[in-house]
Amino acid sequence: MRLSELSARSGVSVATVKYYLREGLLAPGTPVTARQSDYGEEHVRRLRLVRALLTVGGMTVQQARDVLAVAEDPAFGRHERLGVAQYMLGPHVEPPEETDPERELWDQVAAEMRGLLDELGWRVNDEAPALASLVRAVVSIRSLGYRSGKEDIRRYAEALRPIAEEEYAVLEGHPNLEEAIEAAVAYTVLYEPLLLALRRLAHEDVSARWYGTAPGRTHGTPISSP
Amino acid sequence: MRLSELSARSGVSVATVKYYLREGLLAPGTPVTARQSDYGEEHVRRLRLVRALLTVGGMTVQQARDVLAVAEDPAFGRHERLGVAQYMLGPHVEPPEETDPERELWDQVAAEMRGLLDELGWRVNDEAPALASLVRAVVSIRSLGYRSGKEDIRRYAEALRPIAEEEYAVLEGHPNLEEAIEAAVAYTVLYEPLLLALRRLAHEDVSARWYGTAPGRTHGTPISSP
Repeated sequence: MRLSELSARSGVSVATVKYYLREGLLAPGTPVTARQSDYGEEHVRRLRLVRALLTVGGMTVQQARDVLAVAEDPAFGRHERLGVAQYMLGPHVEPPEETDPERELWDQVAAEMRGLLDELGWRVNDEAPALASLVRAVVSIRSLGYRSGKEDIRRYAEALRPIAEEEYAVLEGHPNLEEAIEAAVAYTVLYEPLLLALRRLAHEDVSARWYGTAPGRTHGTPISSP
Repeated sequence: MRLSELSARSGVSVATVKYYLREGLLAPGTPVTARQSDYGEEHVRRLRLVRALLTVGGMTVQQARDVLAVAEDPAFGRHERLGVAQYMLGPHVEPPEETDPERELWDQVAAEMRGLLDELGWRVNDEAPALASLVRAVVSIRSLGYRSGKEDIRRYAEALRPIAEEEYAVLEGHPNLEEAIEAAVAYTVLYEPLLLALRRLAHEDVSARWYGTAPGRTHGTPISSP
């Protein structure tokens, strides 16, 4: 297919396709004339993956290149190829400096969270960016004097585990690895605001049931919506 | 207690306490001398609440004032007082303009989500900011060509409902309403990154179990951590 059709099929503009070609994120097509090339289905798949990495995943071009390099390398299994994409997704949280007064609490929470994952039997790498994000969140909560004990976090982990399993089951529908990586990145990122919104809606329902004065009466009504 | 002790007890700096006093977010203490006032436990509670609204909740001074006005008004019940705080928390998403090509999809998704909440029996106001956030998330997912059907979202909602109930049960431990509002704001916001981090860690564990080549082998190892 021509460049214009590739653009239409993938939903990526012609100018952006040319940019990806220049950056080496997309392999050149087969030359047909001096100014035209022919593109195939593998280009459509790759374009969607590149778009997911850069646009949805917020990766830099270099990070996307690293993900693609591993995705193409037959030396790595499906776990590694999916994982490298997940690890490149932000946020990437760093521990406080050794001299930072918060560092002691950080180290203590980090050890506690590692212990919790081991107790849960979760196979998670010490270097997982999400582990640092978890430690960051717990440190913030405790620094402000709020509760976030290991047992509280365990309950969240156990409640989220079946959801995560259902989510990864969807990837099974994508035997093509590029499609699976694209889906993993897209669903990981795009469903985050959906989860947070549903949690707040569930809070509203709980509050209405426990404290609401009349059926159908819902909160926030006293003043105009912000 | 003196201003310095109030600052120490609440974890809010003296300069910030003075700012809240000037902005009327904190009632003046009882004058002792021309330059000193005496503060009580109600000031400690109020300070922690104001800090939670502004710092953790990211509200403007005016939004915090609105929350405090409702929190103090005996005409409102516990549901309304908790709710007004939750409604002031961002993000506050607006529907696209009537002329925006995305508007048709937005309206369709909004009707579908309203229908889902009704089917679930959730008592949620049409004006709930989290409902607009949910619609925004679903519109984004579908616009990019990914799946986010009503039944998919129902499963997330049903999985999150018991978590939300456990979370609000914690508020029961705060019979004082100002403390309950503070806790509602703080736990709603501070636990969001924790939930998202745990979900990604759960994904890593699922991937390691399904696709991992050897026990303990975890993903992301092929290249240095980003």
